[in-house]
This record gives sequence, C-alpha cells and structure tokens, in this order.
Amino acid sequence: MRLTVAQLAERLGAELSGDGSGWISNVNAVETAGENDVTFVKDPERYGVRSGTLSDAGHRAGLGKSHAGAVIVAGRIEGLSRPQLIVKNVDAALIKALGIFAPELTPLERTRQPFSTGQGGFLTGLKAPAEGIDPSAKLGRDVKIAKGVSIGAAVVVNDGARIGPNSVIASGCRIGENSKVGKNCRLDSNVVIYHNCTIGNNVVIQANSTIGSVGFGYCFIDGAHKLIPHNGGVVIEDFVEIGANCCVDRAKFGNTIIGAGTKIDNLVQIAHNVVIGKACLIAGQAGISGSCRLGDGVVLAGQAGLVDHIEIGDGAMVGAQSAVINDVGAGEKVFGSPAIGHREALRVVGLTRRLPKLAEQLRRLSKKVEELEAAKDDKE
Amino acid sequence: MRLTVAQLAERLGAELSGDGSGWISNVNAVETAGENDVTFVKDPERYGVRSGTLSDAGHRAGLGKSHAGAVIVAGRIEGLSRPQLIVKNVDAALIKALGIFAPELTPLERTRQPFSTGQGGFLTGLKAPAEGIDPSAKLGRDVKIAKGVSIGAAVVVNDGARIGPNSVIASGCRIGENSKVGKNCRLDSNVVIYHNCTIGNNVVIQANSTIGSVGFGYCFIDGAHKLIPHNGGVVIEDFVEIGANCCVDRAKFGNTIIGAGTKIDNLVQIAHNVVIGKACLIAGQAGISGSCRLGDGVVLAGQAGLVDHIEIGDGAMVGAQSAVINDVGAGEKVFGSPAIGHREALRVVGLTRRLPKLAEQLRRLSKKVEELEAAKDDKE
Amino acid sequence: MRLTVAQLAERLGAELSGDGSGWISNVNAVETAGENDVTFVKDPERYGVRSGTLSDAGHRAGLGKSHAGAVIVAGRIEGLSRPQLIVKNVDAALIKALGIFAPELTPLERTRQPFSTGQGGFLTGLKAPAEGIDPSAKLGRDVKIAKGVSIGAAVVVNDGARIGPNSVIASGCRIGENSKVGKNCRLDSNVVIYHNCTIGNNVVIQANSTIGSVGFGYCFIDGAHKLIPHNGGVVIEDFVEIGANCCVDRAKFGNTIIGAGTKIDNLVQIAHNVVIGKACLIAGQAGISGSCRLGDGVVLAGQAGLVDHIEIGDGAMVGAQSAVINDVGAGEKVFGSPAIGHREALRVVGLTRRLPKLAEQLRRLSKKVEELEAAKDDKE
Repeated sequence: MRLTVAQLAERLGAELSGDGSGWISNVNAVETAGENDVTFVKDPERYGVRSGTLSDAGHRAGLGKSHAGAVIVAGRIEGLSRPQLIVKNVDAALIKALGIFAPELTPLERTRQPFSTGQGGFLTGLKAPAEGIDPSAKLGRDVKIAKGVSIGAAVVVNDGARIGPNSVIASGCRIGENSKVGKNCRLDSNVVIYHNCTIGNNVVIQANSTIGSVGFGYCFIDGAHKLIPHNGGVVIEDFVEIGANCCVDRAKFGNTIIGAGTKIDNLVQIAHNVVIGKACLIAGQAGISGSCRLGDGVVLAGQAGLVDHIEIGDGAMVGAQSAVINDVGAGEKVFGSPAIGHREALRVVGLTRRLPKLAEQLRRLSKKVEELEAAKDDKE
Repeated sequence: MRLTVAQLAERLGAELSGDGSGWISNVNAVETAGENDVTFVKDPERYGVRSGTLSDAGHRAGLGKSHAGAVIVAGRIEGLSRPQLIVKNVDAALIKALGIFAPELTPLERTRQPFSTGQGGFLTGLKAPAEGIDPSAKLGRDVKIAKGVSIGAAVVVNDGARIGPNSVIASGCRIGENSKVGKNCRLDSNVVIYHNCTIGNNVVIQANSTIGSVGFGYCFIDGAHKLIPHNGGVVIEDFVEIGANCCVDRAKFGNTIIGAGTKIDNLVQIAHNVVIGKACLIAGQAGISGSCRLGDGVVLAGQAGLVDHIEIGDGAMVGAQSAVINDVGAGEKVFGSPAIGHREALRVVGLTRRLPKLAEQLRRLSKKVEELEAAKDDKE
Repeated sequence: MRLTVAQLAERLGAELSGDGSGWISNVNAVETAGENDVTFVKDPERYGVRSGTLSDAGHRAGLGKSHAGAVIVAGRIEGLSRPQLIVKNVDAALIKALGIFAPELTPLERTRQPFSTGQGGFLTGLKAPAEGIDPSAKLGRDVKIAKGVSIGAAVVVNDGARIGPNSVIASGCRIGENSKVGKNCRLDSNVVIYHNCTIGNNVVIQANSTIGSVGFGYCFIDGAHKLIPHNGGVVIEDFVEIGANCCVDRAKFGNTIIGAGTKIDNLVQIAHNVVIGKACLIAGQAGISGSCRLGDGVVLAGQAGLVDHIEIGDGAMVGAQSAVINDVGAGEKVFGSPAIGHREALRVVGLTRRLPKLAEQLRRLSKKVEELEAAKDDKE
C-alpha cells in the first residue's frame, strides 16, 4: 500500500497543511520514521493509567529532527517544515493509518475477515484461516460447530461444546465439556477452556491462556488442605480481549464473570468468583483474588494486586504494583502497598524519601532542646 | 440432584432447625441464593492467610435478606426464619454439599472416578475420560503405561517415561525422557513435564504449567552469560496440587522438591533447587528464588517474593506482595517489602501514613524551639 | 561417568591438593555431597543481583562437616582434610564438572548435539531428537525447513515460515506466518511464535512461552476501548534464552527487540515496542511496560516492574520488586517501589523501620518543649 500525503489526508479525513505530493507507505515512530513514513504526535493521556513520559512537548521537539514524510497532529504546529495531517483525534487517525498500511502476508489464499466488529485490526494483515476442521482435531459427542468456523490442528472439543459462527480456534486449543464459544471469536494456539464455560461474541484470547481452571480454595480439615469443589463456571462477555498466558479460575458456585468490552493484558491472574464490570483495563501481571468485584471502567495498572473480597467502584484506578486491601470507591485513585488515596500516597512517598533529612532535623532539634534545658537548669 | 432440606440435613449429618420440607438443588452465595439453594455462614478464617472481609456478622446481616431455602451454620442463629442446618464444621459441610449438588455433565459414557483419594471433588461432576491412549499420542521407546490410564490427543510421552495406574494425561501434554508420573494423577491440557522428573501419586497439575524447565543460573565468563548445566530434576510428592501456568524449574544437582500435600495457585514461579515442605499454601503469582527452603505448613500470600537462599520455618506466613530478604523463623508472620515482623510492619505502615502529620509536628516544634532560643538570647 | 579425583583435576585444569585416588561420579551441594561427589565453594557474587546469603565463610564452615570426596576452590583452604581442586574460576570449573557428570538418559538412539555454541549444557545429558518432521506436524505453503531440523508432534508451521539448520521445534509449537527461526535454536513444547517474528541463531525458548502476541494498547473512542493495530513484529537476537511461560508482545510498528545474549527467566512480561540491549539478565516475574529501552548488561531482579517509556542505561541494576517510574542512568542501582538510588533506598528503609522510635522521640521532645515553654511563661 502506497499513498501520497494528500491521498492519506483524504483517507484519514484530515486537513492537510503543507506539500501533499510525497509518498507514504508505512507508520513509524518520530525518531525512526523516514521520508516514506507517516508519524504522529500522541495524545499524552492515551492509556488512562498515567500520562506518558513522552509529553507533547517532547514529541514536538523530536519532530524537529524527524525525517518523517508527514505527521498526524491534533492541531497545527507552527514552524514545522514537514507536511501535517490535522485531525480531531490522533489516536483514531493512528488506528486508521495502521490499518491502511498493515503488512500484507504474502502466501495467502484466505479471504474471509471475521473480525468486523471492533477489533478488525487485532491481527492486522493476517487474514483468518479458511473455514474448516483440521483432520487432526478431535470432536466429542453432541458438539455443534457453526458455519464459517476454523478449527486448527490437534484441537480437542469435548462433548456437548458449541462453537459459534466465524470463530477461529487455533492449533492445540482445548474446549471442555459443554462450554460455549460465541461468534467471531479468536482463540489463539494452546488456549485451554475448561468445561461449563461461556465465551461471548467477538472475544479474543491469546496463546497459552487458561480459562476455567479450578480456583485456590482449600479448607484445612483432618490435617490436610481439602479442596472446595468448584461447581461454578466462567462467563466471558462480548468484546472481551484477554492476553497471553493469563488464568481465569472457575467459580465455586455461580460464575466468575468478565464484563463486556473489558481488556486484559498478559500474565494476569483472575481468581474464582471474581466479577469484573464492563470496559475495564487490567494491565500485565495484575492479580485479582477470590470474590473481588470490580465496577465498570476500572483500571488496574501493572503488577497491581487485590486481596480477596475487595469491591472497586466504577471508574476507579489502582496504580502499578499497588496492593489493595480495602474497598475503593467509584472514581477514586489509589496507590501504594498497601494502597491509599493517590494524593496522600504521593505525599507519603515524598516524605518517606525526606526521612533522612527529617531524622537529622529531629536530631538537631533534640540537641537544641537539651541545651535549652541545660541553660534553664543553670539558671535555677 | 434434588433433596428436601431434611434429607440434606441427614446427608450432612446436620441438626435441622426449622421446616425440612422445602426442596434444595444447588449451593449458592448468601446474596444470590434462591428458595431452592442452600447457602452458608462461612468460618471467617477459612484460608489461614487473612480473615475474610465478610465477617460472620456481615454474613448474618446478609442472611436476613437472603432468599435461600436453607442455611448451613456452625451454631443456631436466633431470629432467623429460614431453615438452619447446624454442623460442627461449616467448611466440611460446604464441601460435602458442593459434592452432592455438583453439575452433571450430560453426554457422558464415562464412569470411572479415579480421584477418590482426597481431591475427589476437584473437577466435580466431570467424570474422568475412559481408559485408553488416543491414537494421535506419541509414545517413545521403553515407555510403561499402567492400567486405567487415559492419554489424550497429541500427547507426547518420551523414551523411558512411566505413567502410573488411573492417571489422566490430557491433550497436548508432554512427558519428558525418563520422567515418572504416579497413580491417580491428573495433568490437564498442555502441561509440559521435562525429563527426569518424578511426580508422586494423586497429584493435580492444571493447564499450561511447566515442570522441569532449566533454571535461571548463569555465570559471566569471557564476556557472556554462560548457563550452569542443570543435571538435577524435580520431585513432586503425593497430593500436591499445582494451578495453571505455573513454572517449577529443575535443580542444578539434586532435585527441586515440593512436599506432600502442598497446594500451589496459578502463575507461581518456583526456581531451581527450591525445597518446599509438606502442606504449604503458595498463592497466585508468588515467586520463590533459587535454593530457598520452606518448612511444613508455610503460607505465602499472593505476589509474595523470596530472594534466593532464604529459609522459612514451619508454619510461617508471608503477607501479600511481601519481599522476603532474610530468613523467617517457624511460626513467624512477616509482611512488607522488604518484609519485617507482621506487628512491627503494621506499626510502620501506620506511622508512614502519619508522616505528613509527623512532619508538620516537627516543623511546629522547630519553630517553638527557635522562639525559645530567641527568648533565651534576649535575656542573655 | 566415573573419574578419580586426580583425573578430574586434570580435566578441570585444576591444581590438586590432597589425595587424588578417590572416585568421583557426581556433583553435589556441600551439605548433601557424599564420598563420590565433588562439591565447591562458590563465588559469592555469582548472579550479580545480590551476594548470596551463603557467604564464603558459611561455605567453608559447611565444608568442615561435608562428606564430599573433593572440593573445587578458588584458593587453597588451610586445615581441610578433603582433597581440593584449586582453580581460577570456580563457576567455570563447576560448569565443566556438571557437563562431565551429566546424567545419561538411557534409551537413546539419538546422537546429534546441535548446541555447540555456548549453551551446549543447556539440557545436559539430553541429546537432541533425530532430524526429521513428525508426520503429525502441519506445514503451510512456502515453508522452508533447513537440514538437521527436528519438528515434533502436532507442530504447526504456517505459510512462508523458515526454520534454520539444526533447530529443534518440540511438540505442540506453532510458528506463525512468515516468521523465521535461525540455526541451532531450541523451542520447547507448546511455544507459540506469532507471524512476522524473527528468531536469531542459538536461541532457546522454554515451554509454554508466547512470542509476538498483540500488545496492550487501546484508545478509548466512542465509548469503547479500541485496539491499536500492531503492524510490527518481534526480533530476538542470537544466544537469547527465554524461560517458560513468558510473554513477548509484538510492536505496533517497528519491532520489539531482545538483544543478543540476553537471558530471561520464567513468567516475564515484555510489552510492545520494548527494546532490550545485549547480555541483560531479566529475573522471574519481572515486567517491562511498553516502549521501555534497556541498554546492555542491565539486570532486573525478580518481580521488578517498569512503567512505560522508561530508559535504563547500560549496566544498571533494578532490585527485586522495585517499580521503576523514572529513567535510570548507566551503572546506577535502584531499589524500592517507587525505585530510588540503592543507597538512598537502604537509608530510607532503615529509617522507615525506625519510625516507631522517631515518633516516640518526637513525642518526648514535644513534651520537653512544652515544659520549657511553661517554665518560660512562669518567669514572664
């Protein structure tokens, strides 16, 4: 794919400022972009977790040295010689541009694109495998496979399972007894879904993740840890995306639930009976203990951990590596291990670092008070 | 399965208080239970790690609003209209009830139940697959498979390996050269056991876990990190249960050992040459560095970490997200990063949060001392 | 394998002090070694992360009680009755000895040893499987497999992929479209490589790891988290070794890069667009967020985390469980959550623990000042 800057501007619905005749064939970062690359000035608060360390200012400074053939910006930057594509939403334009210049994988006879419902770009350029069931796949009794489904090599689908239209189950996956996968889903290689789990529509689960394993619930009886049976299952709602090597445990009763549109990074642990709301973001290596409840739009930053039975209100944010041991109200930001309010945490962190000075100040003050006492005693 | 409240009481060995004629067909939580569900008031210290945030009082308050058809309690609760099943051990009764009302998976011609030795309920309702070796499994030379074993699709059992009676090796597993799996074990899909590892009896390892990988031991020689050969193996004793996506590294010499009855949650890292005692509990995402030694009954809470060569005494507890950098004596509780005694840690955490006040107090005191000094100087 | 102490000394290029006639057939730790085992006194700073808790002194004390048949030492130890093998580099001699006494796996008709380039001992004693492609493996169109390659059961190699000479792709792996694996690589069972990834030569990736998954990058547009397409790939350079159950995400554009000779432990998360230099050590459960850049020789200890866009200079070290939120200069050591300079962090940690005493001191001082003020007021 190759477009002139002017053509790209039109495709992005952008206002063009500068020369539109150069050729663009790729997207690249400010510092590495060449004359045939388009680059961009990012919105600094893109992820909601923290503002990027690369500020707008930093990006703009970098732009001066950049060799990019064009730059996507939210507003015209004065004094810049490169052509600018001015858009309302840089992120949206970037997503569009990445879609336009997606690498084409050469040896492809496949043409179907099942992911038209929001995550179309998830594996940009990688067309879905053709419909069909690999002869090495094992299907149990009473299994129902809808139209347009692709099932890869060495997949096992156990008795009573259902796979919805246009879903792709990659090689080495296992779908347990009576589990249901909706339509337009993508399960990458070696994903294991245990029995009695329900996966909604347009769900993506990346490689080597495990859904529906038995949770960590034991009672100490007669001198041994005895497992609490896990009669429940897992429900993953529509448009959920789960990264690689994650674990979602099944419930003891009822279901572990992940709400629609929630996105989960790699190596995340979600324990039994957890209920997660809609449109949450759970970053890498975060861990959610048993029976926690998260509202809608909650953000957990990387390596954050919640002890069991915690409730987190809508739109709350938990900072990186924080340990949440008390409920968090809607809209609150917490930070620290154990986690406290974000502002208070920043003050505490600052003062903790000043402890050597505070201790020295205290030492000097003690000495002065001793002198004052001595002086007083002298007089008495 | 459907029982009257009176029949359930009899099955649980419970004393019935109230009407025994209603029908019960499921177990459910206090807040979601309906008239055909039995619920329970949990023992608050169930996991040993921390008391639940749902106190007995909280549960009892919830019971007032519950629609449950019956409730399992440790002692009769006054003023409650719902039928009560009074037992000595609520946990044990709950486990029994969950077993009674386990979901029946419909399309089953399988009848064998190999897990009669303690973790019978581990996959409640899910009967083990029939004895037999899937034709797509690959068996090496000199492999010995005992009676009653089930080996799933695409399993690879390398030369000289042994699988004991009634064990289930699910699809996609690999059992390395000369490794031994005991009787009544369950290895879920895509578990990888490297060579020369020994798995005892009644062991459960959940999906996508890796046992016997080479550990992270390098020497910097001639300008490069050179791997220390790992001649040793892994020994996992009887009744150990390991969650999903865990890693247990093999030893450099001797064995990495996990003692009988120890239970391990998901995404846990156990490094080379670690020796873990009996009946320990290792919660999710905890990490144990090389050559650490844990006694019996040790509890590591979620995301806890141990640096290498740490010794932890019998019955010690390490709090969530704690970093252990010194040995921990038997029965001690430690907390924090770095970890210190639990009580001291709580005082330090409390004072840390009071730092803004302490700093303010110090500032005011400094001012007063200055005034006193000025007054003294005036007089002199 | 069985050698006399004298023969072993010769093989190790060691100076022998003491009787050379005993037989040695294994390597073992000081405390467990028997008369046919050689043991060693380790260099205390072996890993570069922290000095071992077993000091030289501790090892030497242990040696007095050891039953080892010989001991490898860096310098002659006085007053020790056991034969000593005196070498310049104990680590290098230990690696050699472990190679000499590697367990021989009995039922082997395989003879090729592909790993002659530095990690020859990686799976000591375990000879590589014979050249050949298992009949259950699926190869796509335009796939190129070099000489000496071994491809295991149920492996899927997608269209356009390349596998270099003498590489071993174990059972259940998937190599995505157009990805390249170099020569002498070892991918253990169930490793998933997505499309358009480049793996260099002599690379080892252990079981259940995932390379090239889509990263965690979303924009919130029109009320939903919309995934940023990941047009980029992953480049893993020569001699990189990656542990089990790790995740390396592909780039949005350009590549996520892991530099030559870098070693990565288990359960590590490396996010999109991260660039790691040469010869770094990344310990277990560490997490590196998007677009971070690490120089050469950087060490991240276990469970350390970096927020996004961090730069870490050559040779810097990050302590266990530390959270890096600011750039780290070359050669710096940082520690803590959030991480600060290592020395400052130690002082802060020490003072934090002294907080109860400091608070008490402040309380007493306040009382004294009050008394002084009262005395002053009395006089006035």
